[in-house]
Amino acid sequence: MKRNPPDFSSINEPAMSHLIGLISASNTLPTLYHQIEQLDAFGFRGVVALHGGQDGLSETSVAGLPAGIVDAIGDTPTNRVLLRLDWGDPAQHAMRVCRDLIGVVMRGSLQNSTSLANRLQSLGYTADAKNPTELISALIHWYHRTQRDLTRATQSAVQELVGLFAISVIERDNPGEIVVATSGIPILIASHQNGFAFSDQLSPLLPFARDLIRLIPGEVASITPTQVQIIDASGSPTRRNPEPISPRNERAALDRFGHFMGKEIHEQPALLADTLTRNGLTPSLAELLGDEGARLLANIDAVVIVASGSSYHAALTARYWLEGVAGLPTSVELASEYRYLDGVVPNNTLAIGVSQSGETADTLAALRHAEYLGASVTLGVSNVRDSKLMQLAKLQLANEVGPEIAVTSTKTFTAQLLSMYQLSLGLAQQRGRLTGAALEEATRLLSLLPRAALGVLALEPVLDQWAQRLARSTHLFCVGRHSNYPIAREGALKMQEVAYLHAEGHPGGELKHGPLALVDADLPVVACLPWNPLAEKLLANLQEVRARHGELFVLSDAGLAAADRLNVARMPEDLRELNPILYAIALQLLAYRIAVCKGNEIDAPRHLAKAFATEQ
Amino acid sequence: MKRNPPDFSSINEPAMSHLIGLISASNTLPTLYHQIEQLDAFGFRGVVALHGGQDGLSETSVAGLPAGIVDAIGDTPTNRVLLRLDWGDPAQHAMRVCRDLIGVVMRGSLQNSTSLANRLQSLGYTADAKNPTELISALIHWYHRTQRDLTRATQSAVQELVGLFAISVIERDNPGEIVVATSGIPILIASHQNGFAFSDQLSPLLPFARDLIRLIPGEVASITPTQVQIIDASGSPTRRNPEPISPRNERAALDRFGHFMGKEIHEQPALLADTLTRNGLTPSLAELLGDEGARLLANIDAVVIVASGSSYHAALTARYWLEGVAGLPTSVELASEYRYLDGVVPNNTLAIGVSQSGETADTLAALRHAEYLGASVTLGVSNVRDSKLMQLAKLQLANEVGPEIAVTSTKTFTAQLLSMYQLSLGLAQQRGRLTGAALEEATRLLSLLPRAALGVLALEPVLDQWAQRLARSTHLFCVGRHSNYPIAREGALKMQEVAYLHAEGHPGGELKHGPLALVDADLPVVACLPWNPLAEKLLANLQEVRARHGELFVLSDAGLAAADRLNVARMPEDLRELNPILYAIALQLLAYRIAVCKGNEIDAPRHLAKAFATEQ
Repeated sequence: MKRNPPDFSSINEPAMSHLIGLISASNTLPTLYHQIEQLDAFGFRGVVALHGGQDGLSETSVAGLPAGIVDAIGDTPTNRVLLRLDWGDPAQHAMRVCRDLIGVVMRGSLQNSTSLANRLQSLGYTADAKNPTELISALIHWYHRTQRDLTRATQSAVQELVGLFAISVIERDNPGEIVVATSGIPILIASHQNGFAFSDQLSPLLPFARDLIRLIPGEVASITPTQVQIIDASGSPTRRNPEPISPRNERAALDRFGHFMGKEIHEQPALLADTLTRNGLTPSLAELLGDEGARLLANIDAVVIVASGSSYHAALTARYWLEGVAGLPTSVELASEYRYLDGVVPNNTLAIGVSQSGETADTLAALRHAEYLGASVTLGVSNVRDSKLMQLAKLQLANEVGPEIAVTSTKTFTAQLLSMYQLSLGLAQQRGRLTGAALEEATRLLSLLPRAALGVLALEPVLDQWAQRLARSTHLFCVGRHSNYPIAREGALKMQEVAYLHAEGHPGGELKHGPLALVDADLPVVACLPWNPLAEKLLANLQEVRARHGELFVLSDAGLAAADRLNVARMPEDLRELNPILYAIALQLLAYRIAVCKGNEIDAPRHLAKAFATEQ
Repeated sequence: MKRNPPDFSSINEPAMSHLIGLISASNTLPTLYHQIEQLDAFGFRGVVALHGGQDGLSETSVAGLPAGIVDAIGDTPTNRVLLRLDWGDPAQHAMRVCRDLIGVVMRGSLQNSTSLANRLQSLGYTADAKNPTELISALIHWYHRTQRDLTRATQSAVQELVGLFAISVIERDNPGEIVVATSGIPILIASHQNGFAFSDQLSPLLPFARDLIRLIPGEVASITPTQVQIIDASGSPTRRNPEPISPRNERAALDRFGHFMGKEIHEQPALLADTLTRNGLTPSLAELLGDEGARLLANIDAVVIVASGSSYHAALTARYWLEGVAGLPTSVELASEYRYLDGVVPNNTLAIGVSQSGETADTLAALRHAEYLGASVTLGVSNVRDSKLMQLAKLQLANEVGPEIAVTSTKTFTAQLLSMYQLSLGLAQQRGRLTGAALEEATRLLSLLPRAALGVLALEPVLDQWAQRLARSTHLFCVGRHSNYPIAREGALKMQEVAYLHAEGHPGGELKHGPLALVDADLPVVACLPWNPLAEKLLANLQEVRARHGELFVLSDAGLAAADRLNVARMPEDLRELNPILYAIALQLLAYRIAVCKGNEIDAPRHLAKAFATEQ
């Protein structure tokens, strides 16, 4: 088939993955192929596609350019297709056909996989708790056996699902319908010339959409070539007037977000869910890094991590896990300094380089320096799989969450955290440091993470109120303790970067050693206060701030009462070791809201650039 | 003899050591004992005294309360006495009688000890290069053989001495005279009821002095019960009118310094000189920590240091020496965080706790925690020998520079640095990591340190100009690289503490990872730029600051030309590994001058206290 030159004008922010689907009165492939050409340039490498009708459902998977899907699906007409495009490998785990009848393509993760898998196995289904797509397709199949209506069956199934997801479903014997449902990951539906398309993001719809319908979490929609019918969480039909889209330009691709930074902050719950489903909740080292990787890390006695900027803060946080969970002495080094350090590396040391872009010259040089000093294995942690860092390192831990357009890193930071937490768990398992109970607890906390992250985003109205107050300040302290101390530093960095606010991160216990001298009514203090054994220590530190007339802005899962000069935002949950991810998101959001209040150039802050190639 | 109750009203700032002398027409002991009683309460523990006349010179040394000297000298009348009081052990190395004829008591150190020792040995003298007092007494003895005049002989000797010192000299056969000379450590002379007294500080003279004469470096004075005669560096007699002292109160004890912080900053060259003479330039581990200490550290493979505030910055600096010089992998931990860290300590680890007061609760707890985690030896580094830290630790490295009255630490910081540098050298020697050439170079640099520190203090007028500009700022960055990066952080802490200026320390290479977003014409940047291989990297970092209209204040030994928005202060010397001590002093002085410009409460900054007993 003939391809037109792609037109990128309206699409410029691919995320880690897209869920896309089309249905047409006639063959939908020309529309699909046109759309794919437009996405082609953005580096998606993995595509899975599900299509077909009464003759059977066809699963297609392509690694490489999305255009490869054209050859894979071919020219056999089909009037509906479900796709998932991934920045990394094809998400085969995200596509499943149950008993040749019910096909599902999804994004996201489930919290109640284990109980669901048990129940489905007892009902006679193949049901792997690690594969939510398998569970969901089986559950819909189960309800469909009796209800004989895909929309109703999906709605019944969704009632049983706890998690963060967007799902698209087709039934072999009803080729004129696609059913979609959402719980936390958006579903947008737009009409095209002879049917409808849907996606979890606006950008793939922009080339043709003139208006769109947004599903509300809990809703299920049946899409045919001619209409969209929605039922709500209680099963009742509901109507929604489509909202117009204009203009169809770059800013429209941001959808309801004013800036890429805001959009990327809001992508995080879904990205965390996707990562957890792709990697598994607690993957072994072999699952994470391959058999060779597991072998190379078998005799590691120490870890050194080199990084700069936000990646350095992620590394500082990871140290708590590498030491506390995996029992490995870990030092964390600023790359720009370490590369010139006449330092010492203990025997059997794993050197880790962390860089969002994988191109940070200092980090590359520092990792080489660690090798020169005697590190026995190197590992790259990056968002870009074919970056220089990943080529340089012996082992690779890709945390692919799609390109980060905003100069300030947000989603890549939490992705680094999650991947290094999983690395720590893998090392701990290999080293026999993890009891069954501890592994179970880690699994439980990880499964709760995506929805908890969504709960943090729900604080935006409160944080916006804080921002209006904080936008009038020129200084600020962020404080935290333990693994939230690096998060306080990262939050301060965000505020420097986009809010142009001289923020500084401190561990609570150090305030009395000097910084307290600065505290007065003009220096507000933002605190990360998860309710753990250190909380009372930090509260005592904060009392000293209040006594000096400093205004407090406290993020905490404890039910603290607000008071004069004491502002409180209730964090959704205490995820223990994983709290740093939640508090990081809250501080990102706060920095973003302050920058919005101040009308700053958020996506390209003054003086900063995204990739660093200095000091070669 | 009867003792009156002491009167402390006029003396309240003993330094690490005092050089004191008295001469009277009749027995001077009653005056001396009266004076000693007043000093008694301040915790001097070591006294050496030299007195006597034609019957011979008597050396007395007392460890314990200074009042012990009363019993030691007894009631035998003498009309002159030279004393040195020390906060630590009696400074026996600082008192020497050459061939029963020439007696010297001194403070300070020499740079040209080795060549002097060689020369004196060839002249037939016992001359140990490690003992400047022995060298000086022998040299004066040599000149006295021909010149037969103690003042002239001392003046001739001083011409040959390179170093930082104050010396007092007596000759057996001329009991009516004391000769004093100075090079960098002050000598003040005051009359008392029937003679004269001198000291290197004002406070011991305050109880009776109504006016005083200050010697200028290079001058030598002959003091008799009835007059003071001065000859200048060229040997010519010179006259000086005594300056009046009033009021005789607490502030008068500060002498010409407005604040204890200023006084303590200015004490540093003499304190460094004293420490180098007491410890030796490059002491072995056994000399520094005793034979048992050397034995315990023989099998150390790693170091962890716990500290808070300024001590933490000293520890961060020491890491460069422990790794770069001694080859020991070293991690540096914030005490308030480390005590709660589920961390890992490698086998054969030395845990060091650093605390000025030795009472910082967090540091004590952190050192206990390191022991709990498996550290095999503990070492306390403190200014207070009988502090809790020193009692807790198996080994003690006392850097006793006398009580620090200002809440902000200055002289204890540089003392911590020097002692930990010497510890690193000792470890390096024991581990066979130091070539003869490297040891020689370290010895040379250490011998240059006191005068170089004095050279930094000479920058005060330039730094005061900077201060007038910086006092108008509310923010500031301090930047440095390598071992001056922790110094930049320490400088920023000083500015927070006393100048109430939101200063933040950054390594130059990290500016581009965020902080640069804050830089504009209102955010000046102070830089430590020793001219070493990293200087050009830092200059490139600073160019980025200038490009963003940030004003630069650069401390450098390179002859940089000032320009628009580029202020330069020329540092006296490049002392390589020891540069952090020099740059620390410069930044202390700058912070102090800014605080003076702003009229702040410098010695007791708002919200801060000296000792920390929180979080028990």
